[in-house]
Amino acid sequence: MSLIDRIAACGPYDAGLYLDFCVDGARIGAVRRHDLSHFEGFQDLLTISDDRLSLDPKLTTYQARTGAMARIANDLRDRGQVPGWRDEAYPVGVKFSAPALFQIERAVVPLFGFKGYGVHMNGFVRDHQGIKLWVGKRSQSKPTGPGKLDQIVAGGQPVGLGLKDNLIKECAEEANIPAALAAQAVPVGTVSYCTSRPEGLRDDVLFNYDLELPAEFQPSNTDGEVERFYLWSSDQVREVLETTDDFKFNSGLVVIDFMVRHGIIDADEPAYTDLVAGLHR
Amino acid sequence: MSLIDRIAACGPYDAGLYLDFCVDGARIGAVRRHDLSHFEGFQDLLTISDDRLSLDPKLTTYQARTGAMARIANDLRDRGQVPGWRDEAYPVGVKFSAPALFQIERAVVPLFGFKGYGVHMNGFVRDHQGIKLWVGKRSQSKPTGPGKLDQIVAGGQPVGLGLKDNLIKECAEEANIPAALAAQAVPVGTVSYCTSRPEGLRDDVLFNYDLELPAEFQPSNTDGEVERFYLWSSDQVREVLETTDDFKFNSGLVVIDFMVRHGIIDADEPAYTDLVAGLHR
Repeated sequence: MSLIDRIAACGPYDAGLYLDFCVDGARIGAVRRHDLSHFEGFQDLLTISDDRLSLDPKLTTYQARTGAMARIANDLRDRGQVPGWRDEAYPVGVKFSAPALFQIERAVVPLFGFKGYGVHMNGFVRDHQGIKLWVGKRSQSKPTGPGKLDQIVAGGQPVGLGLKDNLIKECAEEANIPAALAAQAVPVGTVSYCTSRPEGLRDDVLFNYDLELPAEFQPSNTDGEVERFYLWSSDQVREVLETTDDFKFNSGLVVIDFMVRHGIIDADEPAYTDLVAGLHR
Repeated sequence: MSLIDRIAACGPYDAGLYLDFCVDGARIGAVRRHDLSHFEGFQDLLTISDDRLSLDPKLTTYQARTGAMARIANDLRDRGQVPGWRDEAYPVGVKFSAPALFQIERAVVPLFGFKGYGVHMNGFVRDHQGIKLWVGKRSQSKPTGPGKLDQIVAGGQPVGLGLKDNLIKECAEEANIPAALAAQAVPVGTVSYCTSRPEGLRDDVLFNYDLELPAEFQPSNTDGEVERFYLWSSDQVREVLETTDDFKFNSGLVVIDFMVRHGIIDADEPAYTDLVAGLHR
């Protein structure tokens, strides 16, 4: 195995297995052909053609679309199609900077292949030996990636909160990082991927932050979502990435992005250009 | 103007205006249809069809292909089609990590739309006010981007030299940075673009490095390629990027990448995802 396998795990999907999901003619998601039967009962809201599902164009407001999509989402839930319902609203639109067309329960986002957004933060400690990274082990009760390794702090991006504000909230919940310390986190770019997963199509952009932590800082989880934390040297983290499948599929990319930006992965390594390109799709 | 205009300046090209350049059926470049007449005299080396120029498949070795391409390149030069001949050999292949198929004079690379590679280094100084960036003003005698603003050190990636070794060499030539100091430069990722320019198609990957310089360090040019250096606050650099066209088209991207990685551009700024995506095409 190698770092490139982590990239490949977020690799391209077979578009032939999906139908576009469109609002006003614009593609905003993709639904597995295999799942189409779930949507056939909503002929008053959805038009299904050979290549797309289209939301009724008479739904012209955020509120009307949100109500229609909630009816479908609730029905999917009632039929047991939505593991890990969260009661957390995600905005859905053509892209992050465009106005959202509606909001919808976070757990159904991959079933529709809507774009998803999250904040991921690498917490690290610098000493004379180099960089150590804090790594979280996700709780076994998480609906996605239970027991997998993750950043010290990571979370989805809900409706009505800025990225940095969301990060500070997640820092408190996931690792008990005080707000004043969390506010020092530096935005350092994004990673993006569009890949087929058991839960559907993950078409995500993750906003990455770095936070250099004091050597004496010890994270502790407050919301039950993290089982434990490790402080590993960058060599240890790299070895885990290269020899195991222990990191959650997308969290591995965020670690690779960190290693690229901090020169832990050298530009003269043969796979370098493929690695960097693989972080931005 | 805005940072997004700098990204747009490296934006997609109109593929309809180009023919693929192929070796053994693999596309390795693209030639402007407008320039096709330059190649029509080489029917023993090139087959021209509706959508591509193909190098004679009987040229099966690096050496044979290099010799054939040199014949074409020299002819282009003799007919005045190659400004800024450099006597510097570039390796050409399907991608950076693939074995090169041949080498060719650097100045003709855009005329064939071959992939080009370079090293670009942001030199910076950190003090209590934040980050200052060293900016170079290119000599008026440079064949590309004369008088434009650039990184403190930047150069093409020639045959037979590793990236870091090339960077250390360029650090000495362009800014008189001692090798021991240059060796501390940190590889921090790439930017890539494929865009139509007066000189042809620029399908480039730039390997970016950061070097934190001592406050007292003063760069000085030794090869006549840099007219002068400025040490500007990150706010000043951003203002120049946002209000002028003074940076060389690709050097602007390298500065934006620096600003993204150091949190000078905030993730909550509306254009953020488009900016980051625009650095990786």
